[in-house]
Amino acid sequence: MSVTRQFDKDLEDLRVEVLRMGGLAEEMIHYAVKLILTREPSLSSKVRENEEAVNRLHIEIDERVLSLIALHQPAARDLRLLAAVLKINADLERIGDQAVNISETGAYLCRLPAMKLGDIPRMADLAAGMLKDSLDCFSRHDVELAKNVIRRDDEEDRLKSETFNELVSLMQSDASTIQRAMDIILIARNLERIADHATNIAEDVIFMVLGKDIRHGSELKLGRS
Amino acid sequence: MSVTRQFDKDLEDLRVEVLRMGGLAEEMIHYAVKLILTREPSLSSKVRENEEAVNRLHIEIDERVLSLIALHQPAARDLRLLAAVLKINADLERIGDQAVNISETGAYLCRLPAMKLGDIPRMADLAAGMLKDSLDCFSRHDVELAKNVIRRDDEEDRLKSETFNELVSLMQSDASTIQRAMDIILIARNLERIADHATNIAEDVIFMVLGKDIRHGSELKLGRS
Repeated sequence: MSVTRQFDKDLEDLRVEVLRMGGLAEEMIHYAVKLILTREPSLSSKVRENEEAVNRLHIEIDERVLSLIALHQPAARDLRLLAAVLKINADLERIGDQAVNISETGAYLCRLPAMKLGDIPRMADLAAGMLKDSLDCFSRHDVELAKNVIRRDDEEDRLKSETFNELVSLMQSDASTIQRAMDIILIARNLERIADHATNIAEDVIFMVLGKDIRHGSELKLGRS
Repeated sequence: MSVTRQFDKDLEDLRVEVLRMGGLAEEMIHYAVKLILTREPSLSSKVRENEEAVNRLHIEIDERVLSLIALHQPAARDLRLLAAVLKINADLERIGDQAVNISETGAYLCRLPAMKLGDIPRMADLAAGMLKDSLDCFSRHDVELAKNVIRRDDEEDRLKSETFNELVSLMQSDASTIQRAMDIILIARNLERIADHATNIAEDVIFMVLGKDIRHGSELKLGRS
């Protein structure tokens, strides 16, 4: 196999590895949220299992990227792809951490009397959908889908603020809800952070495809396409 | 100037740039915490000023790293340094975000009656010290100092849990404290996250210097020195 074809194959393998890690992170969110909704603390073991696999992939993918850069000395587009993978890798690992946090808080919450979860299921659906689409846009180099993911982050922030305000009012009117309301607020923040990481991934995809940095609203000042 | 000497100079410039960004992030924490302690909301403008500079450097440093890789095709040690800078850059930017969050919550808190801040000043000192030392260990390639930073993260987590528990008890005994206690809990979490990012930086320095990945307790399984 020619060196170029070998490099193309290595990049394709890397893409598959990132998507596998992303799939495991998606499952972690799914199980962590299911744990809260069904009040089934044993689901935390599923989250933990995936966490180990995600942590292994986190290290493996970083190693692969560095080997590929050292071996093939890529320029421009391929280099942007590899740099994007380094960052996406970090975001996926942190999404896994957030899912672990949700399952730990959730396991604790299951032991207390049931309470309304407000917008948590909606926030969870939105965050999980953003992650799924951020992985799809990475896989397909789809800039339009990436922009769509970024736009949805505002809705997640809005839901988090609403949840926060509603639960503070609830705590003020009924002190017996304080411990549980605090836990639900923490879960809302974890979901918001998952949406933030999905947004980071979508931004990295746009940079990877267009060579344009759109973070910090800089696309107008620093257009590099 | 020879290509090698030019590359060394470029790496040195990059190091200085990272330290400058780190210094700005340290200042942001300083001002945000001072805002809370002195109840002086106008300090949030200082935090905002630095945020703009940090965001500009965030983009600049990423661009420089990619240019240096494309131009000099570094291997092994230099490549690890450049990959570490990409990650440290992301952590510094997120530390800045956390400082902005602290100053925003703090500005809100200033408008409410004063309340004891418990371990917040101690958490702030610890997190700021960890960031300072993580930058020093990056600058000096000091693995022992990096390990020391990583160890201090447990103390920050402990203080955050204590703060959390104390404030939940306070809210339960006195509903008039709920809004303020919630804000202080959010600030404690922001400080904990700053300490997490400093820990990430210290881990990246160890990888950069030793070529060993110590994340996820993997140094025994995956020793690569």
